[in-house]
Amino acid sequence: MGKCINHPDRETNFLCMKHNIYLCEECLKCRDPEIHCKFRSSCPIWFMDKRGGKSIDEISDKKTETQFKVLFKPDNKEITVSEGTTLLEAAVAADVPLNASCNGKGSCGKCKLILESGSIESADTPLLSMEEKENNYILACQTTVHGDISVRIPEETLEKKLKIAGMGKEATDRLKGMVTKITPMLENFSLELAPPTLDDSISDLDRLIRGLSKSGCDTDRITTGLKVMRELAAAMRDENWKVSASVIKKRNSSEIVHVAPGNGGTTSMGLAIDIGTTSIVVYLVDMADGSILAATSGHNRQSACGDDVINRIVCAEKDGVKKLSRMGLATINGLINEAIESAGVKADRIDNVVISGNTTMTHLILKIEPRNIRREPYIPSVSAFPILKAGNIGLKVNPTAAVFVMPGPASYVGGDIVSGLIYTGFHREKALTLFIDVGTNGEIVLGNKDWLMTASCSAGPAFEGGGVRWGMRAEDGAIEKIAIDPETFVPTFSVVGDTQARGICGSGMIDLISEMLLTGIIAPNGNFNIDDTHPRITKDGDETAYILAFAEETSVDKDILFMESDIDNIIRSKGAVYAGFKVLLNQAGFDFSMIDRIIIAGGFGQYLDLDKAIIIGLLPDIDKDKFKYIGNSSIAGAYLALLSEDFRKEAIDISNKMTYIDFSSNTQFMNEFTSALFLPHTNIEDFPSVKKIIR
Amino acid sequence: MGKCINHPDRETNFLCMKHNIYLCEECLKCRDPEIHCKFRSSCPIWFMDKRGGKSIDEISDKKTETQFKVLFKPDNKEITVSEGTTLLEAAVAADVPLNASCNGKGSCGKCKLILESGSIESADTPLLSMEEKENNYILACQTTVHGDISVRIPEETLEKKLKIAGMGKEATDRLKGMVTKITPMLENFSLELAPPTLDDSISDLDRLIRGLSKSGCDTDRITTGLKVMRELAAAMRDENWKVSASVIKKRNSSEIVHVAPGNGGTTSMGLAIDIGTTSIVVYLVDMADGSILAATSGHNRQSACGDDVINRIVCAEKDGVKKLSRMGLATINGLINEAIESAGVKADRIDNVVISGNTTMTHLILKIEPRNIRREPYIPSVSAFPILKAGNIGLKVNPTAAVFVMPGPASYVGGDIVSGLIYTGFHREKALTLFIDVGTNGEIVLGNKDWLMTASCSAGPAFEGGGVRWGMRAEDGAIEKIAIDPETFVPTFSVVGDTQARGICGSGMIDLISEMLLTGIIAPNGNFNIDDTHPRITKDGDETAYILAFAEETSVDKDILFMESDIDNIIRSKGAVYAGFKVLLNQAGFDFSMIDRIIIAGGFGQYLDLDKAIIIGLLPDIDKDKFKYIGNSSIAGAYLALLSEDFRKEAIDISNKMTYIDFSSNTQFMNEFTSALFLPHTNIEDFPSVKKIIR
Repeated sequence: MGKCINHPDRETNFLCMKHNIYLCEECLKCRDPEIHCKFRSSCPIWFMDKRGGKSIDEISDKKTETQFKVLFKPDNKEITVSEGTTLLEAAVAADVPLNASCNGKGSCGKCKLILESGSIESADTPLLSMEEKENNYILACQTTVHGDISVRIPEETLEKKLKIAGMGKEATDRLKGMVTKITPMLENFSLELAPPTLDDSISDLDRLIRGLSKSGCDTDRITTGLKVMRELAAAMRDENWKVSASVIKKRNSSEIVHVAPGNGGTTSMGLAIDIGTTSIVVYLVDMADGSILAATSGHNRQSACGDDVINRIVCAEKDGVKKLSRMGLATINGLINEAIESAGVKADRIDNVVISGNTTMTHLILKIEPRNIRREPYIPSVSAFPILKAGNIGLKVNPTAAVFVMPGPASYVGGDIVSGLIYTGFHREKALTLFIDVGTNGEIVLGNKDWLMTASCSAGPAFEGGGVRWGMRAEDGAIEKIAIDPETFVPTFSVVGDTQARGICGSGMIDLISEMLLTGIIAPNGNFNIDDTHPRITKDGDETAYILAFAEETSVDKDILFMESDIDNIIRSKGAVYAGFKVLLNQAGFDFSMIDRIIIAGGFGQYLDLDKAIIIGLLPDIDKDKFKYIGNSSIAGAYLALLSEDFRKEAIDISNKMTYIDFSSNTQFMNEFTSALFLPHTNIEDFPSVKKIIR
Repeated sequence: MGKCINHPDRETNFLCMKHNIYLCEECLKCRDPEIHCKFRSSCPIWFMDKRGGKSIDEISDKKTETQFKVLFKPDNKEITVSEGTTLLEAAVAADVPLNASCNGKGSCGKCKLILESGSIESADTPLLSMEEKENNYILACQTTVHGDISVRIPEETLEKKLKIAGMGKEATDRLKGMVTKITPMLENFSLELAPPTLDDSISDLDRLIRGLSKSGCDTDRITTGLKVMRELAAAMRDENWKVSASVIKKRNSSEIVHVAPGNGGTTSMGLAIDIGTTSIVVYLVDMADGSILAATSGHNRQSACGDDVINRIVCAEKDGVKKLSRMGLATINGLINEAIESAGVKADRIDNVVISGNTTMTHLILKIEPRNIRREPYIPSVSAFPILKAGNIGLKVNPTAAVFVMPGPASYVGGDIVSGLIYTGFHREKALTLFIDVGTNGEIVLGNKDWLMTASCSAGPAFEGGGVRWGMRAEDGAIEKIAIDPETFVPTFSVVGDTQARGICGSGMIDLISEMLLTGIIAPNGNFNIDDTHPRITKDGDETAYILAFAEETSVDKDILFMESDIDNIIRSKGAVYAGFKVLLNQAGFDFSMIDRIIIAGGFGQYLDLDKAIIIGLLPDIDKDKFKYIGNSSIAGAYLALLSEDFRKEAIDISNKMTYIDFSSNTQFMNEFTSALFLPHTNIEDFPSVKKIIR
């Protein structure tokens, strides 16, 4: 308890841990542009109190309560929270990354912890086995703190380093070759100006602009702000009329954003950032020649608020968009830091940035209201952004750095897809192309140089591990390739990172269902043909399951099961994607036979077995030479836009040109979706090659 | 003493009186963008401590000292200052307006106070008479505080209400007629948007822009900032797709600066502001029809830092430009407040502002470095400004209001002169025109529709009261018209405000010198012909003086004297102006006979007797029908630019088109100046009408 700095007569326990000052409730709530609110906006942790980083609204709703310590092992991170806080909330506040697909609803069962000591209250959950319960397993989101607590994060809950950072050496070399001329948004000019005389007495600003013009800067529509005007006189004279100026070329004008005495450095760095719902990738790029000096990637810390964009939006509505922005920025700034440390570069040399992400991600990072994205008729606040300044959005680079945010045509087709298109370049070609990015959403683009149609088929997060009991991302420990012996039903599999298995990733699921279908373990409708008398088949409650790995083969000391409901979820996901293809083609007046090329983008495609994806009916049964896998095209497009104005213009053109088809109330889509809820499809004639091999 | 909020182990006595928090010296000095500095920039009075509002640099130089109270009567304003502070500094900190022409140098003798009680130390000064010293008169700038003090501000030191606010009713009606179409910078649009549907699912921003376009807003190059993007979703939905948007039309683009739910108000107000070195004038204008709803004026509070721009710049170099900006803004915001109260208008309805002022004034208000204005080769930081936002410069109006600052072509020919030109319109006509504004500077423009030449002739502040013992501005109590009986040398005079005399203003000085010359009291070289045996002639130290009013005729109970040195100063001033005319004409290849018109602008001209101005050689001896007095043309031009984009464009064109001639090292000017140090002129042939009437 302390006294409010604005109202010394009031006792309060809202302490800003950064500023070490107390504020009363009224000061915290006030939205007036008065001084205590200015503090607030300049200090992200006004929103925190010692009880563990609640938002103000949450704090205000609660009575002041007893505080307890929570210790998270194995990293020994400790945080003080108030009584009644859930362990998931405590983990988020302590910046402990937990797997929490369902955003604390208690439905995914992934946020498992092992209680070592302390007083808790825990709701009963069917998502923990009896054995787990006996071994003190709890779900973080279902457990509240009622004393000092020590918990251990078990192997299966820990987030591991992502397998795939970026594009790989060969791909990045190819990328570099795609840029013919480097044209950054922000350019630094080193000028040696003629000192003023009585006969040449134009203002400092006019002299600077004249110097810029002589150095090849387009000064036709150049302007500047008060900050530069205020610093100008000193900056120009301090090094005897040697001055460096940074100019951002915008769409309609240019702006001098910074001046400094002397020649300044010559190195200029750029960042291409792909903000995925699941993972974030950062490329550090030398703007002089386009070299990628470092590539880093990590889990988007927003994952603590759920796996998919809908959960993120729900969380933003509840806790405020600033919380989600802070989580995303923490991830990005951490990755930037890793990148600059590994390359030996200073953050303030970074003066050009491109951000590519889906519409929800860009809204959240920029603190723009996302709530209408998830409500019919699904409207984003903004689809095309002006060039922003890094300092205004919280990126830890040069604060005047220019930031281009990839435009996105619709709520469920975002800048990441536009990025993919500028990388593939199919919008410049005659060939009819189908582009698909199966992330948590499943965005599809169909078209060629004359037209582009796009849609999102709500595939759901199954292929990224969501909604599947032992589902996980393609991290170390993920089972990614599977074959099943048709006689014994014994699987052989390979694991990402050549380590012991701890789950199954998207490509593994496709392999598994395909093998289960071909060996007759399941029927085309997804139901089990075999009962639990077989050693590989078991029951978990009412559900039948296939035992993919026995406890002793795993790093989690538990059987890895593939449940009936898992199969059902994957069939729904693949059905949505296939229905999406079909309807988009149909609306454009085409069928699969007329497609020249199918481009598969996204991390998911990397381990994909095409044959098996066709067998389960995820991809159409056409000539396999027409398929092309291109990896993370969002980061590739961001890289291209970072280096070249032509690509930035192209991105804006593409976004404007795309026709978005909404599937949410499209009856044709619903019909096609229903037909596709079968392995491979209700209409087997559409899959002639599959028809030959299944009974 | 208290503990630094950033370093609780450090004791400090730097207390922010607004935030009531202590900071240590290191935190105060730090220029890092860390949090304590963020406080600093968001809080103007970080720079103040309880000892009376010193700048940090000053504070840091001094040891902590005893604090004393100073009470200023008759208004009973009290302030606590540290020992050794001068009374002038205390007055500035307490916001007590004192007359302090020389900015505390101790050379003007105008900052007289009467000590009523308390302990002081006062330097001896010849500028106080023995009688004054006996009556406890002190000079504020020469007196330091060494105990609790009570002082009274005598009649002659008090600043009175300015006589001239604006242009008068008739003139403002004429002004209104000059605007054919009202085209503000910021326009408010009330929109009723079509709600989004699945078939019309463009983003909120695109929907808003579409609505704006339909309402006639030019959306070709429209953009917006993060703030609007963040507020957009709620603003558009809160009143069911009725939304109001404010758009600023800039030179190269438009910007949506504000959105709000509902129809918003329909009234839009504007301000035209003339920031003079001496006085500031504000017009409150209804943007719908151009009506002037209120006109207010007041002394520029910066006057406490000296009468002329040079002293202001010196003060800014010493105490920081922020101090001068704060003083100017305090005056402006006070006048705005007066205006809106008298018109019954809310400040947030004001969304268009034009500021017109000389180059030093605009630099100081905008906190732009002014120091090179006073150093050869006299370079301003900025001569043309982008459209700014009121909130960023500290005007207490709608923070998103658009602010147009009149461009000024040179350090000593500023936006006020450009304002004057767009009002006169002579740059659109064929007639050869000489435009003169005799303020503290004396700016001249010569030209017609084909060309414009301009110069500043450093007339000095004599005509505004500076450098003249009993000189004052044209306020109540100023002697403004004088006739002298040629036999008795007894003057008859009229006083501004029909009150008792307390000084003499510019037009009075011209009358007086003219009469003294015609009656033979002084010779054409300015020396006295009469000795102090005459009852109207006296000696003050070594100097001869003419007694203009005896103590009993005045409100200050002292003889009002006109000194030899006063005459000298005025001759130098008028000589500089006349030399300026001559050289500018000469450089353009003309002489006085070829001039079609002489326009006299500025408050000074209002009481001017043309004949007498010609007699002393201030104005050329040409046909008097060619002279035209236009009053405060700076505020008139600001008004026109407020209402019309054409006038704003014209201002920029004029500023770019003007050729500036520097007189400071011009030998022809020096020669002409020397020749003009005579009444009316060394070459009497140039003044044929005067030659006829003087002996």
